[in-house]
Amino acid sequence: MLIQKYFVTRQKLVDDALEEYFVLSSRNTSKFDKAVRYSLLSEGKRLRPILLFAVYEMLKGRKNIKSLNKIMPVACALEMVHTASLVHDDLPSLDNAKYRRGKLTSHEKYDPATAILVGDALLTKAFEVLTEMEDKKKAVQCIDILAKAISTRGMIGGQTVDLLSADKNVRINVLKYIHLKKTGALLQAATDMACALCDVEENQMITLGNYALNLGLSYQIIDDILDDVGALDILGKESEDSKNHKTTYATLLGIEGAKKTAEKLLSDAHKMIKNIDNSDVLVEFINRIKERLP
Amino acid sequence: MLIQKYFVTRQKLVDDALEEYFVLSSRNTSKFDKAVRYSLLSEGKRLRPILLFAVYEMLKGRKNIKSLNKIMPVACALEMVHTASLVHDDLPSLDNAKYRRGKLTSHEKYDPATAILVGDALLTKAFEVLTEMEDKKKAVQCIDILAKAISTRGMIGGQTVDLLSADKNVRINVLKYIHLKKTGALLQAATDMACALCDVEENQMITLGNYALNLGLSYQIIDDILDDVGALDILGKESEDSKNHKTTYATLLGIEGAKKTAEKLLSDAHKMIKNIDNSDVLVEFINRIKERLP
Repeated sequence: MLIQKYFVTRQKLVDDALEEYFVLSSRNTSKFDKAVRYSLLSEGKRLRPILLFAVYEMLKGRKNIKSLNKIMPVACALEMVHTASLVHDDLPSLDNAKYRRGKLTSHEKYDPATAILVGDALLTKAFEVLTEMEDKKKAVQCIDILAKAISTRGMIGGQTVDLLSADKNVRINVLKYIHLKKTGALLQAATDMACALCDVEENQMITLGNYALNLGLSYQIIDDILDDVGALDILGKESEDSKNHKTTYATLLGIEGAKKTAEKLLSDAHKMIKNIDNSDVLVEFINRIKERLP
Repeated sequence: MLIQKYFVTRQKLVDDALEEYFVLSSRNTSKFDKAVRYSLLSEGKRLRPILLFAVYEMLKGRKNIKSLNKIMPVACALEMVHTASLVHDDLPSLDNAKYRRGKLTSHEKYDPATAILVGDALLTKAFEVLTEMEDKKKAVQCIDILAKAISTRGMIGGQTVDLLSADKNVRINVLKYIHLKKTGALLQAATDMACALCDVEENQMITLGNYALNLGLSYQIIDDILDDVGALDILGKESEDSKNHKTTYATLLGIEGAKKTAEKLLSDAHKMIKNIDNSDVLVEFINRIKERLP
């Protein structure tokens, strides 16, 4: 299969499954459910679910695409948590972002109160759908991995340090911490959950987790660069950071320095996985991030 | 044991367990962790955990208090979710409450961004602690019950209808829906989880769930009455509803009518449980709510 097709087919699979969780029926036309759908079913790239599939199929072997239905709750949970974090992070009290994924943010389209509850509903739904998994032991493992990735030691931890750093000159290791936690933690949860589902040994789980962290960090550094050059068309959102005079990798290292850092992270990520059989999709993740470099 | 002592000892048990989940150490003194502790470890009555214990001990028999440690994650999860919902509901975009449990709300003490993340962190932590339960099947059952109680069909559903009803004259059945979902759903989750942990038959689970819903609804109606008479000392918070000219049971039925409705709900709740052995603590819940009537 062409690698392009891998991404397209898996993305469609996730889109359809997410849609099913929040079907609007003649009985259900509430404004709130529309608001949940507005954020969740928008033009997301579904990178976290696809990363989960990629690692799972690399370890188990690529079978009929229907075999992925077994782990669909995990894929959907990842996307729900990711969307919840975007909706809350975009709020006026936090990043105050007007656009996301090329359209108005939840609180701009609706209102902040609705956006707060949309985030809460998606965060909760993620855990609910994980309970649907047949193997209850694995369900609990995944819930534990996901909850820790969101926690104060993960995504929320990154967000709180980001908050405390607003309007301050932060050092590069603080910036790195913020990116690793805000973006890396959930990508790592995707590879960790895939490994847990396949019962792989701890060493390999750690390697794939580090690969995911490198993806997340390089992605954010490139976002910093794109913010700096004001590439709204690629970002699908406003250049918040430069607007807010926030410290970024680009302001600290310059565009060229930031580029080199991102390239190094991606080349390290490549070294981590190149000797694993069937890692072609994982290589493609690296290539796709590299392509965003201006 | 005196019934008074039952509440005091169980409350202390929960307070200590919650404290352990969020210990501040010499290494951990972050502003954010202090903010989480500020809301969670404040003067809560721990009614949901105690209701869980009461049903559990009624069904299993009251043994050494240490036997409750086995279900402590469930008790703490209930309190974390309850606190998360208070922190988010109090936000400026929602109820805009300045006081809660007799002190400043999270966003007043800190700021709205911190309060949003405190709520997210507590919501997530609730699911994480449930994974600690030894019996993984029961853990999944509890996670499912809890997630559904929070969801758009539960607490969040009540909150969204409440939002949509602001500045409107709502009918009594809408008000009833809001209270049943916003307050009743999590109390029902407490009795449902206790029943799931004890493997009781569905009939009894439904009866105890209805008892919990009646507790929740009557509690809220009495809150409405206290709001109306402006009893800050009993509520520990401002009289938000009357300040906002919100429709309440008191404005719809008058103080006397609202009182009668609450009393009827509590007397029905009593009928539901009076023939169950060792239901003395459940009776006491009814008495304590009745005592709040002015």
